[in-house]
Amino acid sequence: MSSQLLTATAAPLSYSRQAQQRSRWLSQLTQLVAFPTISAQPKHRRDLQACAQWLARHLAELGLQNVQILPGIKGSIPSVYGDWLHAPGKSTLLLYGHYDVQPVDPLGAWHTPPFQATIIGENLYGRGASDDKGQFFIHLKAIESYLRITGKLPLNIKVWLEGEEEISSPNLAAFLKREVSRLKADAVLISDTEMLDRDRPSIIYSLRGNLSCELTVTGPRHDLHSGRYGGAVLNPLQALSDIISGLHDRQGKVAIPGFYRQVKQLQPTERQKIRCCCKRDQQILDDLDLPTGWGEAGYSLYERMTIRPALTINGINGGYTGSGHKAVIPSLGLARFSIRLVPDQEPAEIAQLTQRYIQSLTHPAVQSQVKITGSARPVLLPKDHPAIAAAIKAVKQTWKVAPVFTRSGGTIPLVEQLFQRLHIPIILLGFGLPDDNIHAPNEKISLSNFFLGVETVIQFLAEYGK
Amino acid sequence: MSSQLLTATAAPLSYSRQAQQRSRWLSQLTQLVAFPTISAQPKHRRDLQACAQWLARHLAELGLQNVQILPGIKGSIPSVYGDWLHAPGKSTLLLYGHYDVQPVDPLGAWHTPPFQATIIGENLYGRGASDDKGQFFIHLKAIESYLRITGKLPLNIKVWLEGEEEISSPNLAAFLKREVSRLKADAVLISDTEMLDRDRPSIIYSLRGNLSCELTVTGPRHDLHSGRYGGAVLNPLQALSDIISGLHDRQGKVAIPGFYRQVKQLQPTERQKIRCCCKRDQQILDDLDLPTGWGEAGYSLYERMTIRPALTINGINGGYTGSGHKAVIPSLGLARFSIRLVPDQEPAEIAQLTQRYIQSLTHPAVQSQVKITGSARPVLLPKDHPAIAAAIKAVKQTWKVAPVFTRSGGTIPLVEQLFQRLHIPIILLGFGLPDDNIHAPNEKISLSNFFLGVETVIQFLAEYGK
Repeated sequence: MSSQLLTATAAPLSYSRQAQQRSRWLSQLTQLVAFPTISAQPKHRRDLQACAQWLARHLAELGLQNVQILPGIKGSIPSVYGDWLHAPGKSTLLLYGHYDVQPVDPLGAWHTPPFQATIIGENLYGRGASDDKGQFFIHLKAIESYLRITGKLPLNIKVWLEGEEEISSPNLAAFLKREVSRLKADAVLISDTEMLDRDRPSIIYSLRGNLSCELTVTGPRHDLHSGRYGGAVLNPLQALSDIISGLHDRQGKVAIPGFYRQVKQLQPTERQKIRCCCKRDQQILDDLDLPTGWGEAGYSLYERMTIRPALTINGINGGYTGSGHKAVIPSLGLARFSIRLVPDQEPAEIAQLTQRYIQSLTHPAVQSQVKITGSARPVLLPKDHPAIAAAIKAVKQTWKVAPVFTRSGGTIPLVEQLFQRLHIPIILLGFGLPDDNIHAPNEKISLSNFFLGVETVIQFLAEYGK
Repeated sequence: MSSQLLTATAAPLSYSRQAQQRSRWLSQLTQLVAFPTISAQPKHRRDLQACAQWLARHLAELGLQNVQILPGIKGSIPSVYGDWLHAPGKSTLLLYGHYDVQPVDPLGAWHTPPFQATIIGENLYGRGASDDKGQFFIHLKAIESYLRITGKLPLNIKVWLEGEEEISSPNLAAFLKREVSRLKADAVLISDTEMLDRDRPSIIYSLRGNLSCELTVTGPRHDLHSGRYGGAVLNPLQALSDIISGLHDRQGKVAIPGFYRQVKQLQPTERQKIRCCCKRDQQILDDLDLPTGWGEAGYSLYERMTIRPALTINGINGGYTGSGHKAVIPSLGLARFSIRLVPDQEPAEIAQLTQRYIQSLTHPAVQSQVKITGSARPVLLPKDHPAIAAAIKAVKQTWKVAPVFTRSGGTIPLVEQLFQRLHIPIILLGFGLPDDNIHAPNEKISLSNFFLGVETVIQFLAEYGK
């Protein structure tokens, strides 16, 4: 590190390490987590609005300018924006995060109230603590550490906080079209992913795509008495189970004809390279406390989670499962499932293949319908760019180890669309941990990761602004 | 009909036909339907208590004696009892009914509030209207028609109204043991079934047994992110679907090894006899507005519904199916199913075969558990007895046609236990109709069936008391 840079980061780093700031930041994060910003549930619209307002106030307090709530497309959930553009000749960095969160079901499995951030030991628990409120808050606190101490930033910054990420950003294309000039930048930093392990920071360069599907199977016009008609009427829940069961073969391969046709085969050398820096099967099973893995033969668990496509049932519902027993043949059953796509699978083509195959699996005594409720292409990001070089350096300075370049099995629909529209590098440098329970009960963020995250971003801003 | 009998029934029949009584009865039935007596849901315990009190008051008002609320076994739901035993030398008839009802889900499919009885055209709609509040109320109104007009009944009567029928009468054995002397009688009349069709009254002489099962499939200790782990972790909902799908073969036969071993094969002559008085396949499909039937080859739809056993999924639930999409591999899935048994299948043996088979269908990456939540043996009732002869005559007098002796696919757990314990004939003479939507939204009773039912019971009491 040059002594000039050392000087540039010394004051913000020292500010970020003060107990006074740290405890204030945690109390601010607690306020942020308290908004039940579940974008999937319309009843939380006001909470999302209120959170957007809180964030706008917060950005302004940090010293960002042009702070505004950008209305959603056609009345959808708004975004929050703010910038600081007083570093002429320097790069412009777009910082992205999302303030919406996943639903909290099953609520009974939470050990602490999901919207009441609770510190236990080394972790802060609460919905959104890691995904993504806690992580984009890292960016904001790095900005604060500069502006409070030095009154300026080492480069130009634009902050954009979205509110529809957890519902697959359905309005993103229209939003990006409208806001393309406002969001123009040289690179994007996103902290919405996880590290490989506690001491292994990583930069993700590949994301799977996604196809969200809703499958409905309809039988009799209304529920029938299962005693009276059982044995003579095809039960929609059984037909639904038959269809779901038919989506995979016995070996765990997706059985949809043509499903793997466009899947790019990786070279043995590439697979060898991946194997070097990924978790072994046993390690993954230990982490999850599972007796055995499952899935496509010929691939490691890590490969099945990243370079291979997958079809997963997210929810299933029909008939009566409350207390007691209700003797019905229900009139319909519903399942939600998602298909994770890898290069070069096209969402529209896979949707069509899936719909056609499910039709063929549907017994003539019932009707089935597959609705596509969300879609995102898989994405492969470039790994060489000054911004990425700066990120690598920042990680080395903070964590004393170089980041591992990894693939993620998850989907951030925004990344692919942003990449296609802005043609700039997107750095997926996340500070979450594999056991953060994102999308699950007892979500948490590691406090040490949070504070080291702030330091990493402080270093990154300095490096990239050099 | 003898002229003596004509005189004996003339006054009660004429009373029961007065517009004044009829409108009063419907308003009383409306009060009875208003109690949300869902025995499957613990939150309705007070409603069941309140309904039992209302019924006790009502029995006393009718002129019944020894009216009391009989406590349930170990604090379970109470029964209501009353009698009139002033006909020495005459037979004693036990009238059974149940005042508990099925849950109302899915509530959105009701056209009228389920607990607000609503008359539309020829029907009264409401949960319990047919099953069984409306039907046992027929008995009470026949008793009223005698006692109000003549001050006496043509035979001895005991009324017993249960509150746990819709949860498979789990405490029945202990209750019958305790109350065997109180309930001692020469015959039982139960109106909790349906006629073959609008103009075809029927007496049911065979009921299928039932085994209520709860199947749980457990995978990861908590929900996992389906993007991150999809493809490498067996999804419990998929494993659940595989199991359910494996419970039948492709032809609709139950695939549990040994399942059909004890099933009594009917003689061709017996099947021929059944065919005479049962609905044809096309008629059943038309009634249900279904394109095609389903099930075991070699049997008509009616036979599949009555003389053959059946396995039906009553409910399935797991993961997230609310609005939007939640990207999880859920940690567990649940299904409730019921197995309808025919002579001579033994519930305990079938339970064991089912549990063993489901274990064998369970992938080693998940765990499954089958809990038996209720069980009842199939039953075949005798068809010759003075009480049954009286019932046949009463039906002929009222409906101008003899009742058809039919088999039902449903289960009334009480019938088999009562039959085994009291060794007396049980007459299943119901006034419901196949389109009454019992156990479903928009349950109703036909008003003309209700009033003809009262007349039938008036005639029956006279005939059996002759």
